[in-house]
Amino acid sequence: MSEVGGRSSASRLHDQLENIAELLRRLRGLGQLPEPDSDQGFREAQVELQRLLDALHPADIAYVLEALPLVDRLAVWQRVKADRDGEILLEVSDAVRESLIADMDDHEILAAVEPLDADELADLVEDLPSEVLPELMASLDAQQRERVQAALSYPDDQVGALMDFEMVTIRDDISLETVLRYLRRFDELPAQTDKLFVINQDNLLTGVLPLNWLLVTSPEKRVSEVMAPDVNTFHPTDDAYEVAQAFERYDLVSAPVVDGNGHLIGRITIDAMVDVLREESESEALNRGGLREEEDVFASVWKSIRNRWAWLAVNLVTAFIASRVIGLFEGSIQHLVALATLMPIVAGIGGNSGNQTITMIVRALALDQITPASARRLWGKEIAVALINGLVWGSVIGVVAWLLYGNFPLGVVMTTAMTLNLVLAAFCGVGIPLLMMRMGRDPALGSSVMITAMTDSGGFFIFLGLATLFLM
Amino acid sequence: MSEVGGRSSASRLHDQLENIAELLRRLRGLGQLPEPDSDQGFREAQVELQRLLDALHPADIAYVLEALPLVDRLAVWQRVKADRDGEILLEVSDAVRESLIADMDDHEILAAVEPLDADELADLVEDLPSEVLPELMASLDAQQRERVQAALSYPDDQVGALMDFEMVTIRDDISLETVLRYLRRFDELPAQTDKLFVINQDNLLTGVLPLNWLLVTSPEKRVSEVMAPDVNTFHPTDDAYEVAQAFERYDLVSAPVVDGNGHLIGRITIDAMVDVLREESESEALNRGGLREEEDVFASVWKSIRNRWAWLAVNLVTAFIASRVIGLFEGSIQHLVALATLMPIVAGIGGNSGNQTITMIVRALALDQITPASARRLWGKEIAVALINGLVWGSVIGVVAWLLYGNFPLGVVMTTAMTLNLVLAAFCGVGIPLLMMRMGRDPALGSSVMITAMTDSGGFFIFLGLATLFLM
Repeated sequence: MSEVGGRSSASRLHDQLENIAELLRRLRGLGQLPEPDSDQGFREAQVELQRLLDALHPADIAYVLEALPLVDRLAVWQRVKADRDGEILLEVSDAVRESLIADMDDHEILAAVEPLDADELADLVEDLPSEVLPELMASLDAQQRERVQAALSYPDDQVGALMDFEMVTIRDDISLETVLRYLRRFDELPAQTDKLFVINQDNLLTGVLPLNWLLVTSPEKRVSEVMAPDVNTFHPTDDAYEVAQAFERYDLVSAPVVDGNGHLIGRITIDAMVDVLREESESEALNRGGLREEEDVFASVWKSIRNRWAWLAVNLVTAFIASRVIGLFEGSIQHLVALATLMPIVAGIGGNSGNQTITMIVRALALDQITPASARRLWGKEIAVALINGLVWGSVIGVVAWLLYGNFPLGVVMTTAMTLNLVLAAFCGVGIPLLMMRMGRDPALGSSVMITAMTDSGGFFIFLGLATLFLM
Repeated sequence: MSEVGGRSSASRLHDQLENIAELLRRLRGLGQLPEPDSDQGFREAQVELQRLLDALHPADIAYVLEALPLVDRLAVWQRVKADRDGEILLEVSDAVRESLIADMDDHEILAAVEPLDADELADLVEDLPSEVLPELMASLDAQQRERVQAALSYPDDQVGALMDFEMVTIRDDISLETVLRYLRRFDELPAQTDKLFVINQDNLLTGVLPLNWLLVTSPEKRVSEVMAPDVNTFHPTDDAYEVAQAFERYDLVSAPVVDGNGHLIGRITIDAMVDVLREESESEALNRGGLREEEDVFASVWKSIRNRWAWLAVNLVTAFIASRVIGLFEGSIQHLVALATLMPIVAGIGGNSGNQTITMIVRALALDQITPASARRLWGKEIAVALINGLVWGSVIGVVAWLLYGNFPLGVVMTTAMTLNLVLAAFCGVGIPLLMMRMGRDPALGSSVMITAMTDSGGFFIFLGLATLFLM
């Protein structure tokens, strides 16, 4: 019977991780003992650890390496069979890759990347120490070298940097019988091959032949009768995220990449596109939270501080500005100390509401759903929502303030300030991402910090300003 | 030459959207004019609009529908050819689907869903008005009905709700030649077929035969010689997100689903898994921001208010608690009004830093990278980062406070409070998601609101408490 649940069950993989961590702890403990009778246990644990690691898929080893603190990570890395190093380096995150490569000497690095394809090499090259590059490039044949250089010539977020070259091409004037015979000459077809690319004598892409069609069609037919002429074709300079969305939209498995003249130059596959989709949503989450880039969860204290300081500094500046806004009204606070007690409510609710709006808008922008006409409509809608929320919740908190301090005008000021700050939050929640987009920036980047800055300073100013005008 | 860039370029699709929106505006404008000479333009615009819509892929129409405000959306929906309605309903988000179905009568709904497969029907059933269900179920044959009911018996986040039944099965005792002949009897193979499932006479799954292997192997060989016995096999009760991660990890295109006895009951494909990955990351982003569920960006004002009020109410309570914490120290503020001015800085930086930590931890939990042993280590690391950041940034702001108010002890209190609040933020930033996880809750849910509540109330208490002890 087949292995039900298989190696792919994430919970079983987590158990493996705990087993490996436990074995590493035991080995460390035993390694420190001087008694010779611990040797037996030591060797047994070593063998068991090696057995566990050898049984894991490279992607699973990558997962284990990411989930282990640095000391344990390197202990596992040294025990992984050298011929799998390259594949594993491709699977781990940038931050973890850096920590693994730092632990390898030049000879080990060259041996690890030697079995890789050109597009995979290109992924790794920028993380390799520069002194190994000349030797690495010299070890490639001319075609490989050209492909690596081509892939490196595109920015990371373009199709050219992600395409591979393992496409199977056929001519359109042959019969399907001939195609079947041609395919049998391969030892195996490249992974994710769901279609063959049809080219003419000038290497121009004229169509695609899905394997599914090849299999259900009579072998006497010619390729040109069966192939699909209208295909999803991409350029090397196309934006990777847009192409990934096309893969998702049209349920593609692979697609050809052509140059400006229609010459076939490579292909792009769903596995690379899934990675693009994941990285996009992760970097959106990190950017929103004010983390500069992917941070390995076990990164050293110093690395974490470096990664986070920029947004903390921005936040310090915005908090200082908000504080100076309050400073303008110290006289009023001295006169009515309840203002100091109530003002964080106005600012806080505004920040929460603004974050809700900005989350919606950033998402709609990422899905490219907003046109100039609909932007105006969104503004109207969000401001209407804010007005109603402000009147409802503002009244609740206004009544509470009135009862708490026995001061009816204070309650009215509170309600008015809440309403106005929510409207400000709605206005900025729609406007900030649209403005970022217009300026060609990522609308998610620091959106949360910016909207909070507006609603803090704005909220303090509106509340304390109204109080100074009407209560003093 | 092939259509370079193809229909899939997202920017071209966005242009189409703008064209459609423009045509709708023109039609609405012309429809209101009384003059007969506008008839010509009206009819031309109608024809042009119909031409644009007919040329679009169902997934592209879904995109257009999502990006249009309700009136325009329904105008487009009425112009879509009825035989594509079902496919389009499958592609749109839940919120938009609701708005489309509300616009259809029972007869239209039944016609729309009639061409769909069992698994697709099951996706739609819960959004259909209950009065059409009896007629719909009666229109299915026994096998279809059984499959729909099976799919409905699993929760949305399990494989059973997402599997389809379009697998191609073969026996292991036949030759590849026979397999090839068998496949030619199909009109077409199901989409995303990259492997055939091999079963024995008891319908037990014994292996898989990738099409790629079928194509490169000599037709004389038997299936049992060529097939892969060890496969990634899933259960209908497996968690969909974990299975999607397995698809990503092992670069799968399709995989068999078996019951507890190893009987093949369905299959799961990469396109469904990509949707799961996207929905997971979207709901994480929405949950973090305090939006209850997927909200259509053009939802009515009332719907938006309903969707958002829950978290706003939670936030109102936490803001009120923070306000009462300040209320405890009104005497101190009266005495030294600078405290009111400086306290939002302490709270704000704590919130920002806590959100950075919680973002990291939620992400590591989603990737299942945290073990009990590493949790302790993470706490140590995050608290060390917080101590250093607190001393550095706290000193900066402490010096500023000292210079601004000429009060050295106030600066010292500021520095100490910042440091302590950052440590509190680190402690809660690691602890809250771990606790949520332990309680079986989604660690992303409201994480931002909770950490901000801790660092606001905590920050005010620490700063004003220290000030009361040492400055009064």
